[in-house]
Amino acid sequence: MKESSVDSQKIVRRKQAGELEYLADNLTIEGPLEIRLRRKVIATTMRTPGHDEELAAGFLFSEGIVRDRSELANLSVLTDNRAVVELAKGVKARLNTAQRFGTISSSCGLCGKTSIESIRQNFPAICSTKIRIDIETLLSLPGKLRDAQSDFARTGGIHAAGIFDVNGELKIAREDIGRHNAVDKAIGRAFLDGLVPLDSHVLLVSGRASFEIIQKALAAGIPIVAAVSAPSSLAVEFARDSNQTVIGFLRPPSFNIYSHIERVILDQ
Amino acid sequence: MKESSVDSQKIVRRKQAGELEYLADNLTIEGPLEIRLRRKVIATTMRTPGHDEELAAGFLFSEGIVRDRSELANLSVLTDNRAVVELAKGVKARLNTAQRFGTISSSCGLCGKTSIESIRQNFPAICSTKIRIDIETLLSLPGKLRDAQSDFARTGGIHAAGIFDVNGELKIAREDIGRHNAVDKAIGRAFLDGLVPLDSHVLLVSGRASFEIIQKALAAGIPIVAAVSAPSSLAVEFARDSNQTVIGFLRPPSFNIYSHIERVILDQ
Repeated sequence: MKESSVDSQKIVRRKQAGELEYLADNLTIEGPLEIRLRRKVIATTMRTPGHDEELAAGFLFSEGIVRDRSELANLSVLTDNRAVVELAKGVKARLNTAQRFGTISSSCGLCGKTSIESIRQNFPAICSTKIRIDIETLLSLPGKLRDAQSDFARTGGIHAAGIFDVNGELKIAREDIGRHNAVDKAIGRAFLDGLVPLDSHVLLVSGRASFEIIQKALAAGIPIVAAVSAPSSLAVEFARDSNQTVIGFLRPPSFNIYSHIERVILDQ
Repeated sequence: MKESSVDSQKIVRRKQAGELEYLADNLTIEGPLEIRLRRKVIATTMRTPGHDEELAAGFLFSEGIVRDRSELANLSVLTDNRAVVELAKGVKARLNTAQRFGTISSSCGLCGKTSIESIRQNFPAICSTKIRIDIETLLSLPGKLRDAQSDFARTGGIHAAGIFDVNGELKIAREDIGRHNAVDKAIGRAFLDGLVPLDSHVLLVSGRASFEIIQKALAAGIPIVAAVSAPSSLAVEFARDSNQTVIGFLRPPSFNIYSHIERVILDQ
């Protein structure tokens, strides 16, 4: 099962007036990445290949298995879709935190976790209340993320995650077939660059905001999470408790604020 | 963390012209369901509560853990978000097939599976090539599924799955915050009603078609899978091998055919 084999086949498109067209389709690639701590498989995720180092690092960090860049001695991505992590001497992986011993899918964020309460305990709430964003900046984010995307426009089948500063500057944009992977890649980049905690930043996701997205943002210290589609009930509940601002349906000129509205400058 | 606690809070909506509105939002509920075989936890999935019996049955069936209705002696959904399954005497769960021992998320379809090749071996390819669908019927499906949806229109944050016959009649429609759960619920209903294999039926999903969606359809014997958004590369590859027709971007008047075009009646 070669990842490239699909591209060589034609698909048939039925167009507006009923006529048919034969075209090569650039499908979003989906394939497994195994993340290992030395020989121990921590997770297998279905992801879009690329930025695998960031994905592995972001996963380990956003799940609380490692907390600091210095805890990683080595991170190698092998050609057979395996990312192998070696921890620095004396560092013990916090596997009890996440306890993911199976494999996970592209959208999986809760494998092996014993309870949501235990997640809460592992990631303290955001402290800062100083960070604020104004409406015009907020409304500018989806367009900026879209401009940075490549595959999305082409296939419509890929999720995007962008990390912005509160002035609306796009710092990191990543794409993946899995919503959580896109977030892990973006956070992983920041983690590898020593930029966490991202406590004056905004995370924007192109789809829905599930509980796991909010939790991963919390792990990275991100106080504001915006989504183009709806947040879930659990996402909003979690964000209220963890002092995170959740924006949903961010579709200019409109949006909804679900929690911690004090970070949005409404009186302009 | 009560599931209903979100509804009682107001959200703030920024409207077209910039004015603000305070409204109660009906968020899509997301909460864990633990699926047990007696005392053994097989999976914990983040799902939208409701139709939990179908979800548990559909999960066990679509993952190949059970193959026939008669293998279930009892299926109870308890009030604390647990579904407990008892197998009939002498029936052994095929846990080696799926080996999901952790918990999974709303969109997780690959937990613990050792390889995609092993999945292929567990579910034989579709045999029949007789089933065909005409274009007008195909184009009518998304509207019919949407008409059957309740939560989707209200929140935009929920996935839908519909099982149709090839004449376009909607047989089962289910919704869930997780794409795989919506499919499991629909297939689970059919399974509990003794309607599998669904070998003259079409599965329509409201979002993307990932590999796992195609695999679950295959488990239920469904020859045609249509999606409103894009299929992934692995979904298409898998479908080509398993003799399944994959339709993507089914947005009237257009759609794409990615595999086994012979089931679509193009010359009308």
